[in-house]
Amino acid sequence: MLVLGIDPGTATTGFGVVEAQGSRLRAIDYGIISTPANMDMPARLCLIHESLNRIIDQYQPQTAAVEQIFYHRNAKTVITVAQSRGVILFTGASRGIKVCEYTPLQVKQSVVGYGQAEKRQVQLMVQKILGLKEIPKPDDAADALAIAICHLHAQRIERIYRSEL
Amino acid sequence: MLVLGIDPGTATTGFGVVEAQGSRLRAIDYGIISTPANMDMPARLCLIHESLNRIIDQYQPQTAAVEQIFYHRNAKTVITVAQSRGVILFTGASRGIKVCEYTPLQVKQSVVGYGQAEKRQVQLMVQKILGLKEIPKPDDAADALAIAICHLHAQRIERIYRSEL
Repeated sequence: MLVLGIDPGTATTGFGVVEAQGSRLRAIDYGIISTPANMDMPARLCLIHESLNRIIDQYQPQTAAVEQIFYHRNAKTVITVAQSRGVILFTGASRGIKVCEYTPLQVKQSVVGYGQAEKRQVQLMVQKILGLKEIPKPDDAADALAIAICHLHAQRIERIYRSEL
Repeated sequence: MLVLGIDPGTATTGFGVVEAQGSRLRAIDYGIISTPANMDMPARLCLIHESLNRIIDQYQPQTAAVEQIFYHRNAKTVITVAQSRGVILFTGASRGIKVCEYTPLQVKQSVVGYGQAEKRQVQLMVQKILGLKEIPKPDDAADALAIAICHLHAQRIERIYRSEL
């Protein structure tokens, strides 16, 4: 099973493709989609859509896992991130991919076992879980891998839960 | 010149197609794109994209005018509206349409001549400017027509300004 984790943004959208083979998780690819600051917003959103479509073409994931946005201090950032997130949710759905959403708390809880974990702890656990030689870079790519891991953990727990019913 | 005004939302996205013939403005079509509340978000965003594409197919507007979002009290609403707005900006750009953005203040200023105008005043002026028998309904459609009018006024002012340089 292949999962595409996505950490939405306008300047930088992180992505991470993770494969589950039994209980073992493996990073197939990860990186970022960047859009230039001097490009207008509609064109940047087009670029995110096209780049994501190419990643989907290449890896054919069954599911996409996307982080939920929370209201924080910078209003402008919330709005632009939400706009990119809208395009990401749409792109997944338009390709017939199931799109699941997780809160930052769920991601930290799932990857580190502690909802208040710091960024560095999450990154170290992502490295460990996926058996990578180094912490995946940049941060947005590591976040996207964490979201994919969170989804695969959630799926596994659901399977165990169902088999015990 | 045909302009497609759009008032973004998740449950209801207003649209209004306005034609400029010299200084006269005419409403070609207006209405809303509705998405069911029980549909999941990615599917709702797909529906908005597909509906907007059909409107673009039908009228082939040269420009789309979209209202900017402002941070207000309901955080969840801001995020969901911004997600729809992202899909709308993307849809316009993906069809090669120029997408212009206006603040609610600019729209009121342009349509009523007063930035703090009330909803009812804006709607009455929309009716008057477009020579409609009644106030266009529902509200989101009237808002979308107001955004299209705002764009056409801005274009006209720009043309006059340029011709005087």
